Amino acid sequence: MNVEGTSRVEAFSDGVFAIAITLLILEIHVPAPGGAGSLWAGLLGLWPSYLAFALSFFVILVIWVNHHELVRLVREINYPFLFANGLVLFTVTFVPFPTAVLAEHLVTPDAAAAVAFYCGTFVVYSLAWCLLLSAIVRGGLFRADVDEETVRRIRRAYAAGPLTYSVAATVALIQPTIGLALNASLWLLWIRLSYRAPAARVEERYRNA
Amino acid sequence: MNVEGTSRVEAFSDGVFAIAITLLILEIHVPAPGGAGSLWAGLLGLWPSYLAFALSFFVILVIWVNHHELVRLVREINYPFLFANGLVLFTVTFVPFPTAVLAEHLVTPDAAAAVAFYCGTFVVYSLAWCLLLSAIVRGGLFRADVDEETVRRIRRAYAAGPLTYSVAATVALIQPTIGLALNASLWLLWIRLSYRAPAARVEERYRNA
Amino acid sequence: MNVEGTSRVEAFSDGVFAIAITLLILEIHVPAPGGAGSLWAGLLGLWPSYLAFALSFFVILVIWVNHHELVRLVREINYPFLFANGLVLFTVTFVPFPTAVLAEHLVTPDAAAAVAFYCGTFVVYSLAWCLLLSAIVRGGLFRADVDEETVRRIRRAYAAGPLTYSVAATVALIQPTIGLALNASLWLLWIRLSYRAPAARVEERYRNA
Amino acid sequence: MNVEGTSRVEAFSDGVFAIAITLLILEIHVPAPGGAGSLWAGLLGLWPSYLAFALSFFVILVIWVNHHELVRLVREINYPFLFANGLVLFTVTFVPFPTAVLAEHLVTPDAAAAVAFYCGTFVVYSLAWCLLLSAIVRGGLFRADVDEETVRRIRRAYAAGPLTYSVAATVALIQPTIGLALNASLWLLWIRLSYRAPAARVEERYRNA
Repeated sequence: MNVEGTSRVEAFSDGVFAIAITLLILEIHVPAPGGAGSLWAGLLGLWPSYLAFALSFFVILVIWVNHHELVRLVREINYPFLFANGLVLFTVTFVPFPTAVLAEHLVTPDAAAAVAFYCGTFVVYSLAWCLLLSAIVRGGLFRADVDEETVRRIRRAYAAGPLTYSVAATVALIQPTIGLALNASLWLLWIRLSYRAPAARVEERYRNA
Repeated sequence: MNVEGTSRVEAFSDGVFAIAITLLILEIHVPAPGGAGSLWAGLLGLWPSYLAFALSFFVILVIWVNHHELVRLVREINYPFLFANGLVLFTVTFVPFPTAVLAEHLVTPDAAAAVAFYCGTFVVYSLAWCLLLSAIVRGGLFRADVDEETVRRIRRAYAAGPLTYSVAATVALIQPTIGLALNASLWLLWIRLSYRAPAARVEERYRNA
Repeated sequence: MNVEGTSRVEAFSDGVFAIAITLLILEIHVPAPGGAGSLWAGLLGLWPSYLAFALSFFVILVIWVNHHELVRLVREINYPFLFANGLVLFTVTFVPFPTAVLAEHLVTPDAAAAVAFYCGTFVVYSLAWCLLLSAIVRGGLFRADVDEETVRRIRRAYAAGPLTYSVAATVALIQPTIGLALNASLWLLWIRLSYRAPAARVEERYRNA
Repeated sequence: MNVEGTSRVEAFSDGVFAIAITLLILEIHVPAPGGAGSLWAGLLGLWPSYLAFALSFFVILVIWVNHHELVRLVREINYPFLFANGLVLFTVTFVPFPTAVLAEHLVTPDAAAAVAFYCGTFVVYSLAWCLLLSAIVRGGLFRADVDEETVRRIRRAYAAGPLTYSVAATVALIQPTIGLALNASLWLLWIRLSYRAPAARVEERYRNA
């Protein structure tokens, strides 16, 4: 029974993350050949595509790190976990689409709608994470050494997700630039989310040597 | 000989599942830039694409879980297994195409044909699963602790597959909406397919701690 | 040093195989919406795409099985192995392109050129395998229990590759259908290529239990 | 805690490498059907696409080997490592775009700009590697048996990266062909970069048997 536990679901999830993050580049389209000198102008004109690509790459990377950190705390999986995790992956594979919408509409009169749509998809995304956490808690899937304090910290952070992304989406409808900046900063916050007790971190530094 | 057994074929299959499920998003095309306010209309008008994407994502996820559960019961592999598994993967990598057909034709006069084609591909798909099961049974590849009752249960469920998808495809030719709903419900049934004896499930809960 | 040996190069190669085999579907394009009843005609008219897709899927599957079987016999890797293996993967990632050429030109006056190009790419492919085998033999990378007879058998089969694919490509220039059938049958032969001594096969059947 | 260490980040990185290297083929577009005999001309006319595909495949392969060799020397990971590694992957997933720019503009009056852009992206790429090395050194993440001399050798080579790719990009602005040849030769140099002490190499040859 050595393939049980979290390893195969981790491998599958990592595959989906790796593909979604790599597919983003397919949405940047090469400028068509024109007269001499036009290529630089064409490449510079693609800045909304570069921005959307960089932002979404960073977003999926942060999601991957968070997934990595959460699943590390899980001892075993069950069906509700598999499907809640599937829902998280569903929202991750969707990312290339709002990214392309953002890239193509950021410098059009529809910028507000494009940014609001981009931010809005992460409301659904963060609801999926709440469901995943709920599946873990209800199923008693956390490892025995995961303390109450860590679970509480994660729970509070996850609960804040849908609310903060809704705010970013609403702000984007009025001020797209500020909404997008707000969305990006929220991801910076997720990096700082601590899944490990400070002591545990120092300890495992040496345990893995 | 530690790379033998099912691990490499599982890893390869998982790679194919992960890619097929992530490629689905490439079939949703960004609405072209127009006048202000047109983007929301364009995004809403893509609902058949979202529906097809969500359905096929869910379908491949269920297939992955089923593959996971079946291969867990397998002790070793042989050539017939490798090629029957390859045929299953063949039908899985095909899924993005009927999904795109469904998305582009669901609100056209060809809706019946699109849904019937979508459902029809799963007839071929479920025949491939029957072949895979047959390769396992004939080759004596099941683990020693897989009881007769479990094999019988799986066999009955797999045999029902081609028939039920044929019914869904036929219904779709007359009533596309009902055919599609029928197809979706069949996948809900597959989730409930039990590959594990109830006792074994409880037991392994603690064994994997 | 537990990540050395063949495991990481196997995982990377499997990733490339899995992606190349799944990307093939992207070359089948959905028929554009037209009048009622036109979809079935459009889907039927895509038969060259289905044929090319099925053939190339089967081809990459056979390549994967062969790669699996060859690498099983390898004890350790070196730089020449890594780059010869890279060349094999290079020819595998190229497969979707001749597949698309075949699909789009099989029912045009250019059918002979399309089939000859398709078959011709496998001449380069089989030369890459010869290089890989040569890297293994020169570097002494085979496991100690791989007997002379097995190496000789593999060597003879690999040497026949470039020649037979050249014949298929030449035939295709005159009779595309026969050239394509010849190419497909060559892959059937590769399945039968035995990397394992008959005794070893029976033995390991029980060893992996 | 057995999923810690470098294994999951290696698996994720390998996934990204495998996908980026395989996506390159999607940028080669099949010549449209025309009169008989036009297909060979069309296929020959795609030589800039083949050249760009072959170069970028080789480039990503060398990057993968280098990543493999560097991460082998790493004992454990931390957050700065994860994000520096993410930046390296970011530049790798970007490769298909400059490759497509190169393929479409190599035989246009914009060839100099296309080659300079292609070479220029590797300036950013090599800066990301410097950051990754810096994260490893600062975090003390190297294995205990990695000697000072090896670290010094890697450091010197990595520091030369941004400079040499800048030179190639500048040369390309004046002589695109020479700039491209220079870029290709730089990758040949990276193959020769030795991450292992000569003695260690011989020793481990037998240790992995």
